[in-house]
Amino acid sequence: MNFLNEVTTRFPKAVSFAPGRPYEEFFETTDIFDHLHRYLDHLAEEGVSPAGIRNLLYQYGPTAGFIRELIAASLRDDENIDVSPESIVVTVGCQEAMLLSLRALISGPADVLLVCSPCYVGILGAARLLDITVVGVDEDEQGRVSPARLEEAILTEKARGRRPTALYVVPDHSNPTGNTMSLEARQLLLDLAARHDFLVLEDSPYRLVSPGVQLPTLKALDRARRVVHLGSYSKTAFPGARLGFVVADQPVRDDAGRPSLLADELAKIKSMVTVNTPSLSQAVVAGMLLEVGGRMSTVNAGAAVHYGNALRTALDCLERHLPPERRDSVGVRWNEPDGGFFLTLQVPFDVDEASLTRSAEEFGVIWTPMSYFYPKPGNVRAIRLSVSYLSSEDIEKGISRLTRFIESQASTITGGFDDQSVRGRDRGVPRAGEL
Amino acid sequence: MNFLNEVTTRFPKAVSFAPGRPYEEFFETTDIFDHLHRYLDHLAEEGVSPAGIRNLLYQYGPTAGFIRELIAASLRDDENIDVSPESIVVTVGCQEAMLLSLRALISGPADVLLVCSPCYVGILGAARLLDITVVGVDEDEQGRVSPARLEEAILTEKARGRRPTALYVVPDHSNPTGNTMSLEARQLLLDLAARHDFLVLEDSPYRLVSPGVQLPTLKALDRARRVVHLGSYSKTAFPGARLGFVVADQPVRDDAGRPSLLADELAKIKSMVTVNTPSLSQAVVAGMLLEVGGRMSTVNAGAAVHYGNALRTALDCLERHLPPERRDSVGVRWNEPDGGFFLTLQVPFDVDEASLTRSAEEFGVIWTPMSYFYPKPGNVRAIRLSVSYLSSEDIEKGISRLTRFIESQASTITGGFDDQSVRGRDRGVPRAGEL
Repeated sequence: MNFLNEVTTRFPKAVSFAPGRPYEEFFETTDIFDHLHRYLDHLAEEGVSPAGIRNLLYQYGPTAGFIRELIAASLRDDENIDVSPESIVVTVGCQEAMLLSLRALISGPADVLLVCSPCYVGILGAARLLDITVVGVDEDEQGRVSPARLEEAILTEKARGRRPTALYVVPDHSNPTGNTMSLEARQLLLDLAARHDFLVLEDSPYRLVSPGVQLPTLKALDRARRVVHLGSYSKTAFPGARLGFVVADQPVRDDAGRPSLLADELAKIKSMVTVNTPSLSQAVVAGMLLEVGGRMSTVNAGAAVHYGNALRTALDCLERHLPPERRDSVGVRWNEPDGGFFLTLQVPFDVDEASLTRSAEEFGVIWTPMSYFYPKPGNVRAIRLSVSYLSSEDIEKGISRLTRFIESQASTITGGFDDQSVRGRDRGVPRAGEL
Repeated sequence: MNFLNEVTTRFPKAVSFAPGRPYEEFFETTDIFDHLHRYLDHLAEEGVSPAGIRNLLYQYGPTAGFIRELIAASLRDDENIDVSPESIVVTVGCQEAMLLSLRALISGPADVLLVCSPCYVGILGAARLLDITVVGVDEDEQGRVSPARLEEAILTEKARGRRPTALYVVPDHSNPTGNTMSLEARQLLLDLAARHDFLVLEDSPYRLVSPGVQLPTLKALDRARRVVHLGSYSKTAFPGARLGFVVADQPVRDDAGRPSLLADELAKIKSMVTVNTPSLSQAVVAGMLLEVGGRMSTVNAGAAVHYGNALRTALDCLERHLPPERRDSVGVRWNEPDGGFFLTLQVPFDVDEASLTRSAEEFGVIWTPMSYFYPKPGNVRAIRLSVSYLSSEDIEKGISRLTRFIESQASTITGGFDDQSVRGRDRGVPRAGEL
């Protein structure tokens, strides 16, 4: 990512489709204080003494967090996920939740983590930190990893003497592709997890900031405790809080052989990483939840409409600048996500540092090479666009610049090409994906 | 520690010398808001726009933190440690700083981490999480690890084909013993680090909450960039912030072979653990620093006197209840730290779950078995007392109960004993220690 940062710094006037950051006009500095006060008032109303409130803010706190009841209630109301507060560990962002989960589930060199490829860089980083072997299962030309393809990968690993212990997925409006797994694919995945005895790490931060009705989470469908649900408040509350959580209701035995929950094991690991999650981060998000009766979906109703419109704007602009016959002749395609922050463009040229620099310097538009999201290095003729951070004016301007860049780059690099050569290069367009 | 927690829960009326928590009467809930406002006002005065302030609080932030300049200034003024802000990474408590440092410095099974034994449990946890081999170097009967003993351990490891890459130390008022390393020992340690090519991880959270003038830190004495300085605001500000930092000014090469600082490598690892440190935690500690012109020592002048008095009260009570001839006949000894939160008692009986339960149940006093702080399990006839969390009345009451317990336990278990048997059992009294 260093090169991307450098380009962003060198060309500050370029429109950047790179950052997966929330739109910041939603934020208001003084709200922070209101949220904090609201949570402290709530504690007082619940009968917590002034000294108790003071200590909650100032002292070391419980390793698993002090707002687990609020999170459990919100999961039940917003997501139909019915779990006990005891199965939740509050973490320093979803990144720590990933790290704890991998550390608990992958216990030796024979254990491997499966990921869809391309996949979110955070899980690759956590796996690298722990020296965990990652096996990427490539998406097919429709941008999905079918259960058959996944099973094939599992059998291959088992034949090599390795044990696929967990699969990481972003089922809704995935980062980086924007694809969403169908309901049928979710059911098949849970069946597969039971049949081959692995856990599914479900990470789904974009659901509540997406318009319309969402498919049920894997965790809501999970009848056999096969799913560890990773939570993030970076998109639904704000990234600066660095607040996340993990739902791990799997029964395990502790060191002394007593029945326990996987969450308890994760909390033990957390005590070696960050001890406990900062009090102010927990308090401010709790205050946001309390403002709207505990429903994160209510907090984000306006944001979901906004991000939906941003995606629609980007797709409409692409359609306008590159109508079907034009896009065929240039050799560019894209998927059409109905939520989340991202979409994928397949392009007919090599996506490398030189092309990114040219795009920023000569056309004033920045994006993320899709190759950044693959477990293995290599050239991938695709780019990720993020629309979350931009105003609709900037999206219009940026897509206009982007299409000019793509047309220029396609003609510069290849000197024109026929349909045949396009198809030869095209790795396939990810669509609303199925696993 | 689970058993200790259980005992504490079962006997809530017992005086507990177990927790190493700060004294909470220093804390005032409304101060949190004042500190936050002060920092935001400071940013405005520095010319940061309202949108810039909003984004600093709400958005993803720089991985290495946004208050590094304030920390660097405080290190210079408070500790005579002169480092650039670029050599600092702000972390989620000192625990994350340890984890990042170990991950960067220990790169394979041949690398080992040296620790003084007994040592702080946080570093043992971080090492366990990363599957790092820890070699404990036992303190001698004067409660110190001499350079000769340390060198012997290094040579032994090298002879086994292993590489001692780093040594973790708490040079001032150590947790768990309360011992302090002499100036001469500090110099010898730095010489040894240069001669045997290892880095020293210096963790010293109790300096600014201890009375009187402190010896220079290892980092202040470090002329060869042999010291990675781990910082904590859990004692000097408050634990709930979970704010720490690491000073890592060692020159290294990055992946592309360009000159860089170890801090940059630590920041890369941090991006895989917590992404960045929560904004509110950074802002509130920055506000505390700004209130007193940037000096943490000024914030803590009153606390240092308080904790010094607490230690003095505990030592005076021990002296009163167990004057020299009495303590010889019972077979108990203790060290006399002049700062920090802890002191060590050597006792003439096995310190196990049964004795801790009896102490809590029959005598109403709780403490921490020293065996918890050893890298290897085993029976250790010593206990740690923490005085930080208690009022002077509770310290008086607790020491009175403790001495009754010790006298009873000594007579119950051994049925009385002569000097010879005491000496036989005595593992030596840690005094103001030298490494």
